[in-house]
Amino acid sequence: MRTSLCDQLGIEHPIFGFTPSEHVAAAISRAGGLGVLGCVRFNDAEDLDRALTWMDDNTDGKPYGVDIVMPATVPKEGTQVDLAELIPQSHKEFVQQTLLKLGVPPLPDGEGGEGVLGWLHSVARSHVDIALEHPIRLIANALGSPPTDVIERVHAAGVPVAALAGKAEHARRHVQNGVDIVVAQGYEAGGHTGEVATMVLVPEIVDAVDVPVLAAGGIGSGRQAAAAMALGASGVWMGSYWLTTAEYTQSPLTQKALLAATSSDTVRTRIYTGKPARLLKTRWTEAWSAPGAPEPLPMPLQNLLVSEAHLRIARSDDPSVVSMPVGQVVGRMNEVRPVADVMADLLREFGETVERLTKLSR
Amino acid sequence: MRTSLCDQLGIEHPIFGFTPSEHVAAAISRAGGLGVLGCVRFNDAEDLDRALTWMDDNTDGKPYGVDIVMPATVPKEGTQVDLAELIPQSHKEFVQQTLLKLGVPPLPDGEGGEGVLGWLHSVARSHVDIALEHPIRLIANALGSPPTDVIERVHAAGVPVAALAGKAEHARRHVQNGVDIVVAQGYEAGGHTGEVATMVLVPEIVDAVDVPVLAAGGIGSGRQAAAAMALGASGVWMGSYWLTTAEYTQSPLTQKALLAATSSDTVRTRIYTGKPARLLKTRWTEAWSAPGAPEPLPMPLQNLLVSEAHLRIARSDDPSVVSMPVGQVVGRMNEVRPVADVMADLLREFGETVERLTKLSR
Repeated sequence: MRTSLCDQLGIEHPIFGFTPSEHVAAAISRAGGLGVLGCVRFNDAEDLDRALTWMDDNTDGKPYGVDIVMPATVPKEGTQVDLAELIPQSHKEFVQQTLLKLGVPPLPDGEGGEGVLGWLHSVARSHVDIALEHPIRLIANALGSPPTDVIERVHAAGVPVAALAGKAEHARRHVQNGVDIVVAQGYEAGGHTGEVATMVLVPEIVDAVDVPVLAAGGIGSGRQAAAAMALGASGVWMGSYWLTTAEYTQSPLTQKALLAATSSDTVRTRIYTGKPARLLKTRWTEAWSAPGAPEPLPMPLQNLLVSEAHLRIARSDDPSVVSMPVGQVVGRMNEVRPVADVMADLLREFGETVERLTKLSR
Repeated sequence: MRTSLCDQLGIEHPIFGFTPSEHVAAAISRAGGLGVLGCVRFNDAEDLDRALTWMDDNTDGKPYGVDIVMPATVPKEGTQVDLAELIPQSHKEFVQQTLLKLGVPPLPDGEGGEGVLGWLHSVARSHVDIALEHPIRLIANALGSPPTDVIERVHAAGVPVAALAGKAEHARRHVQNGVDIVVAQGYEAGGHTGEVATMVLVPEIVDAVDVPVLAAGGIGSGRQAAAAMALGASGVWMGSYWLTTAEYTQSPLTQKALLAATSSDTVRTRIYTGKPARLLKTRWTEAWSAPGAPEPLPMPLQNLLVSEAHLRIARSDDPSVVSMPVGQVVGRMNEVRPVADVMADLLREFGETVERLTKLSR
């Protein structure tokens, strides 16, 4: 499973693994893929610096990348306090009442927390600054093309830029802005997604742009990777599937909920960030779609609104309320295995699949 | 592109083409696939008989099949007049007002019409009766397993039964009921669909049942057919793609609307039959999702409610209001070509794709 991206990025297999865990990212890189560390959870640039330093020490010199969350246009965002004033009181009350109904305990005294700030433009820029001080081989942006000055800075450091797209017209725009690799993110993917499914979206974007395209959405096996490559992708971008690897130790509660879920147990909703994103369907997401629930707020307000709730949910011990982005491939995530085993199985099944296709095309 | 289904059904390629047109169906069979004629539009059994007789005369002895619409459990349905009494007056008024707003003219004096009755159980049973008097090689049911007595009758005639499924648990139940072939219909498909996309659904169903699985949803090219086969399918089921073939002459208006649409121009809605189905997004579908629009009625009431509207829309000359099931693959349907050309291109690209995969797996 080699494409030109392997040579360009110095990787063995064109398997891109997006993950919020530096342990998972490092394991993906060690296994011959490109581990891509999600930066959004790092409010403090120094924490990201420490995580990347750890990766430098634990990737055996193999390449890795980072993923940021940055809109193409700089929003007027102000400080967190200013923004919080834009959140309607009725929304805050809905969140508090819902947590009460769901039995999610308050945070222990003295613990608070500012929630996840990586959605703010200024914080995402600090992620780029820190990342460029490390030997990263890719910066991906979950919200499409970053601002062109950011692209230029990253390019000046000799690092290519990848951007997610859910429509062919977005992919075209990203490439016009200077993006080097497009991640075609299908409807079935976890996190931010559009309406067009991977089967339709990937060939459409491959035909629309003249840069390598990674297929994202619905990929967790060698058969699915082979399907993605058949559609014309130059590699696969997998996010959800690593959440049930042994190296993902950030949230045993989430892992438990994911292991039990079927492919029908996800929902595309704006409640996580204000933009449509696919999440595990839980009592938390159901509460937001019940009659009388408020409309989610726009980005970045919605994430500020629910950030304390996310902390409380994460600290609770009830898998039926977790708030977690994940794709429909969650239905295949039924056991905890080391990253290296996941990768080896995927590559083996990919080879078998191509062999099977070769036979039936004779 | 040969699988065991080819031998079982006497076809050259495991490409199943669902279509409401006997001309398209015959052309698909002549081109080496299995043309499957949709029966739902035939209110009168004699009309279906004539269409199948025409196919007998125009398929060069090649195999073909039919598609019916029959729920597994027999509904209490009564006559059309009884049913019409169950439709709320406010729904009827909404339809009339919407057609007025959209500028759809009334039917000419003296023309009325009973709308499409194929959704009624009794009518669907008459389709089975007629079909079994012809040398059909497959009966497919768009609503999952038909009642077991119907399956037994079809089997007694030596004909296999296929059933659509949008979830693995449905596929399992179909096979328990005696279904021989499962059509895994992904979210991106036209007509009745579930929530799970083809990329995730197909391998899930392939792993869940021990009968051949056809992949449906998002397939209109050799790359997509190769992806479907990579996912483990024993063949592909294509519906939308034939609507822009030269042989599809039932509605030039619809064809015009489809040619102009992108992959983002579809919507999954209950307004066509009462169950979620993907349609072309037009001013008609938008009217039903506008604030104040009523909730669609359950099957079969919704179809009765809109049947006169469908006739009026079909007779109008405005492509922006058509009511037509179609999948996201509509974005690739940009020119009118003969069925034989579509099939030849698909097979050529399938071969090229497998060759490309073989090279990158070395």
